[in-house]
Amino acid sequence: MDFDAMFNAQLDALKEEGNYRIFAELERECGAFPQARSHDADAPDKVTVWCSNDYLGMGQNEVVRQAMKDAIDRCGTGAGGTRNISGTARHHVALEHELADLHGKEAALLFTSGYVSNWAALSTLGARLPDAVILSDALNHASMIEGMRHARCQKVIWKHNDPEDLDRKLAALPANAPKIVAFESVYSMDGDICPMEEIVEVAEKHGAMTYLDEVHAVGLYGPRGGGVSEERGLAHRIDLIEGTLGKAYGCVGGYITGSAALCDFIRSFASGFIFTTALPPAVAAAAQASIRHLKTSDAERRQQRRQVAQLRAKLDARGIPHLDNPSHIIPVMIKDPVKCRQLADILMRDYGIYVQPINYPTVPKGTERLRFTPGPLHTDADIDHLVEALTVLWKQCAIAHAVA
Amino acid sequence: MDFDAMFNAQLDALKEEGNYRIFAELERECGAFPQARSHDADAPDKVTVWCSNDYLGMGQNEVVRQAMKDAIDRCGTGAGGTRNISGTARHHVALEHELADLHGKEAALLFTSGYVSNWAALSTLGARLPDAVILSDALNHASMIEGMRHARCQKVIWKHNDPEDLDRKLAALPANAPKIVAFESVYSMDGDICPMEEIVEVAEKHGAMTYLDEVHAVGLYGPRGGGVSEERGLAHRIDLIEGTLGKAYGCVGGYITGSAALCDFIRSFASGFIFTTALPPAVAAAAQASIRHLKTSDAERRQQRRQVAQLRAKLDARGIPHLDNPSHIIPVMIKDPVKCRQLADILMRDYGIYVQPINYPTVPKGTERLRFTPGPLHTDADIDHLVEALTVLWKQCAIAHAVA
Repeated sequence: MDFDAMFNAQLDALKEEGNYRIFAELERECGAFPQARSHDADAPDKVTVWCSNDYLGMGQNEVVRQAMKDAIDRCGTGAGGTRNISGTARHHVALEHELADLHGKEAALLFTSGYVSNWAALSTLGARLPDAVILSDALNHASMIEGMRHARCQKVIWKHNDPEDLDRKLAALPANAPKIVAFESVYSMDGDICPMEEIVEVAEKHGAMTYLDEVHAVGLYGPRGGGVSEERGLAHRIDLIEGTLGKAYGCVGGYITGSAALCDFIRSFASGFIFTTALPPAVAAAAQASIRHLKTSDAERRQQRRQVAQLRAKLDARGIPHLDNPSHIIPVMIKDPVKCRQLADILMRDYGIYVQPINYPTVPKGTERLRFTPGPLHTDADIDHLVEALTVLWKQCAIAHAVA
Repeated sequence: MDFDAMFNAQLDALKEEGNYRIFAELERECGAFPQARSHDADAPDKVTVWCSNDYLGMGQNEVVRQAMKDAIDRCGTGAGGTRNISGTARHHVALEHELADLHGKEAALLFTSGYVSNWAALSTLGARLPDAVILSDALNHASMIEGMRHARCQKVIWKHNDPEDLDRKLAALPANAPKIVAFESVYSMDGDICPMEEIVEVAEKHGAMTYLDEVHAVGLYGPRGGGVSEERGLAHRIDLIEGTLGKAYGCVGGYITGSAALCDFIRSFASGFIFTTALPPAVAAAAQASIRHLKTSDAERRQQRRQVAQLRAKLDARGIPHLDNPSHIIPVMIKDPVKCRQLADILMRDYGIYVQPINYPTVPKGTERLRFTPGPLHTDADIDHLVEALTVLWKQCAIAHAVA
């Protein structure tokens, strides 16, 4: 049986519809971020990264790097086992305490990635609580969708960011069924932020557990970087807060925080937690240093906000449409996968601007976009150069200036 | 609704049956491995780790550590994005080439963990190849089981390490259905090794694709560490070889290797690959250094074999039963979760010997065990101390000396 032919047939279909992905090969350079060296033939040697999720540049922060190197010197490069079988280091335990404190919770639990934390936590809750129903915002991330799918419990999808629809759907369920309301604070592709207080109130009214994904918010929102739930003073009313160490904190890994019983429950029953090698202690050390830094330093967040506002204003001045939202994410809608790729290619080749075209399956077909994430290390000149390039391309490509 | 009460009820049940897990909190010390500092109140300050999957001590290898630190200095602590959105570094690409070369394949694809590589690859193959059937060895790892479960395709379980049963089960399937035979080389809990050539022959006879998990073999078997498939000259006959960077290579992460079309297919369609932050470039650099080292250095493997043989012989001399197998894993069967935990506690407290009790769900109930993994850095004195301690305990606890 010719398996390669079967694979190639599906890959060819992707290519035909313009959704085949080509990864840009980069080499970040400490001290120069968001500048990076490009290893792609068609790109200049040096490019400016405009689509990183290392939102604050903490990946090159001296304190974070030093913490990681020190831990490597002391403990080596890996954990050497699952958390249960020789893989728990002092660093994991300390990081879990740090995370619990960040969100004002009793406990925290680390995972190898944010994806795995959502997948493992939701699938375990849905599968092990008898008659559980998960009520999921319509635009939840793939990792939550896969977790719910894996749980094989009842799922109910409520309209995106619509507490009234959630209320109706909760009311229609049996009173004694355990209900889990799963949603995000910042939705990463549109950059909109949920009406958190309203959602929490609806969930409380129905005795439902709240499950909040803050991966695009931790480190960035709230006086200590505790996310939108901290900023709005709602963390104590949310049962489970999930986050990542791989975006604003500049490392890798995911986590949940909540009651001691909740974290112990996931720790004890989640396959994706139990049967996997722990994060390297050095990654835990680096992440802890990053979290501690952002608990007290607000400079990165303030400068990020300044640059986000600046890019928005300059795009507006040139009539380049972008999705209106209150977050740090600026999506410029192109709505066609082939054009989106072409624009990104020209930006890279002619302007040294790297922004990855965002196509299906990351966003629905027909909503393809360029997604810009200005950070505190983008200079005013970087922003001017980007806006200038987009202005030229906007005219050349004759893309409608109507607001998307 | 009192969710904590629901969680605690299930945790209490675990505790009653002796399967509640307590993690040992350790601090590995570079240069001293397998010695580590213990942070548990009941343990001595210094313990000898006897259950690590850092099988060769590569996690403290100077070359590996230096590669990781150099990459941190050059590129920082994290990748900053998914592989598609700014997260592909030169280091990932170089490591994938290194892995393809290791197994003699066209291509390789990195994942955040071995667990995710199995889960994502098997679920994608099973879900996206129309009418696919996955034929799974009865003792396959949890990550493969969850992947198959997620695929929702037809699954057929064949008797553990039984090519004749596989043959019968393949013959009973429709000729034109794509069939995937999934199995492991070294089964980590019993330490037995599959009859690989016979399995491959049966699969070839039926035109089935072969999917081989070598996570407990890469780095350890074969002249270049390519696993049992390299040792037996069978790698070129296996379609997909999956492995880990978190065990013998001393880092973290997982991978698959295979044809270019196969890797591109998984890259393009697997949710668990697409929607997750890439491994830190520094982890990729460390893993590549480790793989390169073990491609040419055989000293670690030879010394490991010597110490494994020595521990087996000395256990035999004292009449302490252990599972007979041809691998580096020495399971001493206890067959009771409470006794298994008690023995491990006494070894830790009184002898400074750390071996984690292996209980359900890692092994079936009634097959609880202590699982020893001697490495090249265990000294002869370490081995004597362990055997002496076990001999004393064996008499005290009056555990049957019959071969398990």
